[in-house]
Amino acid sequence: GDMSSISVPPPKCLQKPLVVPHRHMFGPGPSNVSPRILQAGARPVIGHMHPEIFDDIKSGIQYMFQTRNSMTFAVSGTGHTAMECAICNAVEPGESVLTAVNGIWGERAADMADRIGEAEVNTMVAAPGVFFTNAEIEQALSKHRPVLFFLTHGESSTGVLHPLEGIGQLCLKYNCLFLVDSVASIGGAPLHMDRQGIDILYTGSQKVLNAPPGTAPISFSERACQKIFSRRTKPVSFCLDLSWLANYWGCDGKPSRVYHHTGPVTAFYSLRESLAVLAEEGLENSWERHQKVAEYFHTALESMGLKLFVKEKNARLPTVTTIVAPHGYDWKDITSYLMKTHNLEISGGLGPSVGLVLRVGLMGCNSSKANVDMVLAALKDALKHCHKNKM
Amino acid sequence: GDMSSISVPPPKCLQKPLVVPHRHMFGPGPSNVSPRILQAGARPVIGHMHPEIFDDIKSGIQYMFQTRNSMTFAVSGTGHTAMECAICNAVEPGESVLTAVNGIWGERAADMADRIGEAEVNTMVAAPGVFFTNAEIEQALSKHRPVLFFLTHGESSTGVLHPLEGIGQLCLKYNCLFLVDSVASIGGAPLHMDRQGIDILYTGSQKVLNAPPGTAPISFSERACQKIFSRRTKPVSFCLDLSWLANYWGCDGKPSRVYHHTGPVTAFYSLRESLAVLAEEGLENSWERHQKVAEYFHTALESMGLKLFVKEKNARLPTVTTIVAPHGYDWKDITSYLMKTHNLEISGGLGPSVGLVLRVGLMGCNSSKANVDMVLAALKDALKHCHKNKM
Repeated sequence: GDMSSISVPPPKCLQKPLVVPHRHMFGPGPSNVSPRILQAGARPVIGHMHPEIFDDIKSGIQYMFQTRNSMTFAVSGTGHTAMECAICNAVEPGESVLTAVNGIWGERAADMADRIGEAEVNTMVAAPGVFFTNAEIEQALSKHRPVLFFLTHGESSTGVLHPLEGIGQLCLKYNCLFLVDSVASIGGAPLHMDRQGIDILYTGSQKVLNAPPGTAPISFSERACQKIFSRRTKPVSFCLDLSWLANYWGCDGKPSRVYHHTGPVTAFYSLRESLAVLAEEGLENSWERHQKVAEYFHTALESMGLKLFVKEKNARLPTVTTIVAPHGYDWKDITSYLMKTHNLEISGGLGPSVGLVLRVGLMGCNSSKANVDMVLAALKDALKHCHKNKM
Repeated sequence: GDMSSISVPPPKCLQKPLVVPHRHMFGPGPSNVSPRILQAGARPVIGHMHPEIFDDIKSGIQYMFQTRNSMTFAVSGTGHTAMECAICNAVEPGESVLTAVNGIWGERAADMADRIGEAEVNTMVAAPGVFFTNAEIEQALSKHRPVLFFLTHGESSTGVLHPLEGIGQLCLKYNCLFLVDSVASIGGAPLHMDRQGIDILYTGSQKVLNAPPGTAPISFSERACQKIFSRRTKPVSFCLDLSWLANYWGCDGKPSRVYHHTGPVTAFYSLRESLAVLAEEGLENSWERHQKVAEYFHTALESMGLKLFVKEKNARLPTVTTIVAPHGYDWKDITSYLMKTHNLEISGGLGPSVGLVLRVGLMGCNSSKANVDMVLAALKDALKHCHKNKM
């Protein structure tokens, strides 16, 4: 054929203008992004990152994570990419991994670990809505002797905020790295990476931070780095190889940065700005605000006759609330009605909680009593219109 | 410690406003992003992607790649992520891979393949600036019998546009998948995925498309899908597992999409818009414009007494020009001077071409005679000021 002429014509759909509606993003994420953060991401692209922007992001993550780890940066990807980055660096073929499964995230971590050749993956499983005691964790650590223990701090599929106290010490005792997923919780509930002995911690940009999805803060303790930098084999992923990423982010102390990949520059601008917003409010204020708004929300839900999925009050995630799917309704009717009538996104369950719950996320700038009132009014309206007997 | 109080204070650097300069991005990428595309990325975040936006992107990529493959979508990551996606899906442990190395990208592909347990990775190596004949490729295919052959269409580290005619047929003959990296070339030089028998093709968003980095178009032929979907083992990466991605992008024909990861929604808006811009101009017009501008540039460089690194005229990449690093200069002085004095980014070599070349990228909206004139004037000025004898 003539190589200067085309055989696939230009698609008609691209002739229409891009239309994006504004929605109340009150699901488990992504959350609404403020105009300030969106506009930061619309700044011009530059090539090699300003070292200042990298440094700003690093410092902002250290603050958000409450850590002094120098191995702190943002992965060019989403929370899942950061999860994979943590696991594929920390685990070598043939090693043993333990994941705590009380929702979808532990399942995902086990799936990822399982893909590493000959890795031995063990899980400890609890029903959705429940958390593990330290005694149960110690028993499992002692039985399986893993090199890595995975736990989800904010289980967004079930609404559980997992207690963290004492687990870091247990992991240290059993010579195991402590990996925590804080995608749905960080910034909205107290977490102290260093004090609580967390070895690897990651999150996403699109929850409490209110930045667009696409970047994922991560940090590695000295102990994690020691294990990773004495690996016998290369990590299975080049893109996520910590030695490359450490140099790219200037975390390895070397004077010059070698080209690794082209980071999502404009997404880094947004991330930087979202960290600035968090620092302006102050972590403690943000924790307190999320807690107060959640309590206000939970009390109101119960007084509407709805049931909260997580029984133990202290284990309720302040960012994502799980409501027992109300009897006499198809949960899909409720979420569809809210979207159609109120332009408001909430969601049903995910993984082990599918069919069991409705999930409402009020994260970062979305966490306010005004938004709670909006959700409550919309929910009341939905419950009036969606009852199965009415259909 | 008291878990409600912090130990790492908010960083001072985040108190300053975010400052991003405007620059002429005339290096090998990322390229300048037009206000239209930047502003598309500043639209509000929505949760589940509009199916229309996914469909727009898919159609736009099919057009750009000149393919009718239904397995066509954008990876949530950069060109490197797409490279890893292609390799980790197409190759199983123990299989043989062949990569053509005439610059950095073949090296990177070999590194990635090498991380797959027990994979046997062979390379055919040529000097930077040179390409392979079909006879050489057939010899190597016949010797190594790989399941996958990797070739770079636009070798941005050396400035070579690799001929593609006949190679797809050779790969078919030797029952091998043909994987092509078109990160630096697609949209700027003729390429026909289907007609040329390419089985897996990927690119990045930040070159000719002029979108921010962070999304990477990719497409798989029917033959590639057959091999991938009959794997004995899971791909090492969950995030890049084609069966998950195919469902997420609605390419697998299943009626419902399962949650896989949270895509970079706003980056997808920008990608969609950049594909619309390409469709508006028309691929053939874009190819012709890049070729004409490159020829104008190359002639002018030679008449300035500079030498082009790629001897063979037809093998010169129209998007990224490699100039032999001029005698009597330190190339770093030239790139620094251009940045400082002209606010203009060009770069030195990369990988095997370090120290040998200067690289100028004029891609997408940057490919114009006016920009060539700007680069030429700036280069003349730099050559006046940067000579070693003057320092």
